[in-house]
Amino acid sequence: MNIDGKQVAADLRQSLAQEVAELKQQTGITPGLTVVLVGEDPASQVYVRNKVKQTQEVGMISNEFRMAADTSEEALLAKLDELNNDPAVHGILVQLPLPKHINESRIIESIVPEKDVDGFHAMNSGRLMNGEEGALVPCTPQGCVILAKKHLGDDLSGKHAVVIGRSNIVGKPVAMLLLQESCTVTIAHSRTKDLPALCREADILVAAVGRPEMVKGDWIKPGATVIDVGINRIATEDSKSRLVGDVDFAEAEKVAAAITPVPGGVGPMTIACLLKNTIEAARRFGVRPQ
Amino acid sequence: MNIDGKQVAADLRQSLAQEVAELKQQTGITPGLTVVLVGEDPASQVYVRNKVKQTQEVGMISNEFRMAADTSEEALLAKLDELNNDPAVHGILVQLPLPKHINESRIIESIVPEKDVDGFHAMNSGRLMNGEEGALVPCTPQGCVILAKKHLGDDLSGKHAVVIGRSNIVGKPVAMLLLQESCTVTIAHSRTKDLPALCREADILVAAVGRPEMVKGDWIKPGATVIDVGINRIATEDSKSRLVGDVDFAEAEKVAAAITPVPGGVGPMTIACLLKNTIEAARRFGVRPQ
Repeated sequence: MNIDGKQVAADLRQSLAQEVAELKQQTGITPGLTVVLVGEDPASQVYVRNKVKQTQEVGMISNEFRMAADTSEEALLAKLDELNNDPAVHGILVQLPLPKHINESRIIESIVPEKDVDGFHAMNSGRLMNGEEGALVPCTPQGCVILAKKHLGDDLSGKHAVVIGRSNIVGKPVAMLLLQESCTVTIAHSRTKDLPALCREADILVAAVGRPEMVKGDWIKPGATVIDVGINRIATEDSKSRLVGDVDFAEAEKVAAAITPVPGGVGPMTIACLLKNTIEAARRFGVRPQ
Repeated sequence: MNIDGKQVAADLRQSLAQEVAELKQQTGITPGLTVVLVGEDPASQVYVRNKVKQTQEVGMISNEFRMAADTSEEALLAKLDELNNDPAVHGILVQLPLPKHINESRIIESIVPEKDVDGFHAMNSGRLMNGEEGALVPCTPQGCVILAKKHLGDDLSGKHAVVIGRSNIVGKPVAMLLLQESCTVTIAHSRTKDLPALCREADILVAAVGRPEMVKGDWIKPGATVIDVGINRIATEDSKSRLVGDVDFAEAEKVAAAITPVPGGVGPMTIACLLKNTIEAARRFGVRPQ
């Protein structure tokens, strides 16, 4: 079966909209998300437009700052300092990638961890890894676990999860989340030997490498749950293009018990989880507007 | 073969002593480690005594603060604040466990990450996980990797490392370090199914569960490197006691290519790596004494 991420994300947004309404009524706080976009990258503009739209749809306050591609690191830091100190801003998201002259990790670390709704600040990574309270958890990994549970139920304990990919944005945080769910967790990557055999051990297989259709049907244990994080654009014969994941979907769906399609799987979950994080940040650290 | 942790630790301390001497000569800085001990736990007193002794032996400044078992959390926080602001203190270590009325994680997070030579602060965990510069890495995990490299050489890339145990102090950080070394890493724990079979896949097996002699000889792949982090005291027939690891050493040494004994394996590495962290902290953030 397909795990319908589009539907799960829509359901999540609906329950978030209700949470926002209740929070407003009970505390007077309306969660506010501010997105900062530096430069004119077309893909980033599309993402940001979607974020703004969905933020507003659940009843949250959305702000957007666009800064020129030649904005200095100092100017961006000054902007973030202002947002850090603005009590109406509960979540700050700096759209990546940034122009090359700006030090990305310096920027990420300059956002106060309590407003870092992307969950990329070392303080949030560390809280996640240590299982401490107060972590804001990266959005795509959260989405992966929600989708896995959609098929498997809430108890993932004892399942062997194999994560292909060790990025800070997906691989490592999703591994930590699955470990928290008491999965046995294996992190594989480009240096892994006999990756197909390793993948065949997985009850839950998370592919997050960014290589189109790399995971073949015979890499998958019959009955496994496959979460495909890849979004790769490939050329088709009619000189057009289409999106495919890191998993060869046509082969994999015959073997897996459940699989997330691309598009329409993990993708839609990311923004929904971003809204979830912002509401959490508002709940924890929000200040009633004066 | 046995991996002689006692010897490796002694060699490391010798090279650290030389580093300290050079640092002193070049910058005027003498790295300073301050240990805070609350209460009278006898095991903690032994540890602290060893730390003080070894700190002095490599030419560093050692300070020790003993506080009564009924010290309030506020008094301890005030002490740590003082140490955080003392430029002659490069490393701060609060000996764990703390008395029950003190919130351990609040204490750990109150140490500035730059002086947290135990590497337990979420900021250090996160920097380790994200592969960022400036992490102070927990000591026992560092020791594990040094000992594995002692046998296998510096390139661990592509080896399958299985870590049994998912604690914040050993399991998770050692997994992150081995991942940084480009191992394929599996984290196993009490909920793992068929642990023996999983262990038999390991080129590097790290046991950090605290269960005496749990890992049997037939859990080990012939030729594997076994790092035994456990230190368990068990009763012997003559109503005395002895220390054993998490691995059944007598069985395992027949199968493994290399194994760390208990005692004399990982144990001695921990304090040596603590000194190493303190020197690193002094180098990075040290202020020349006035």
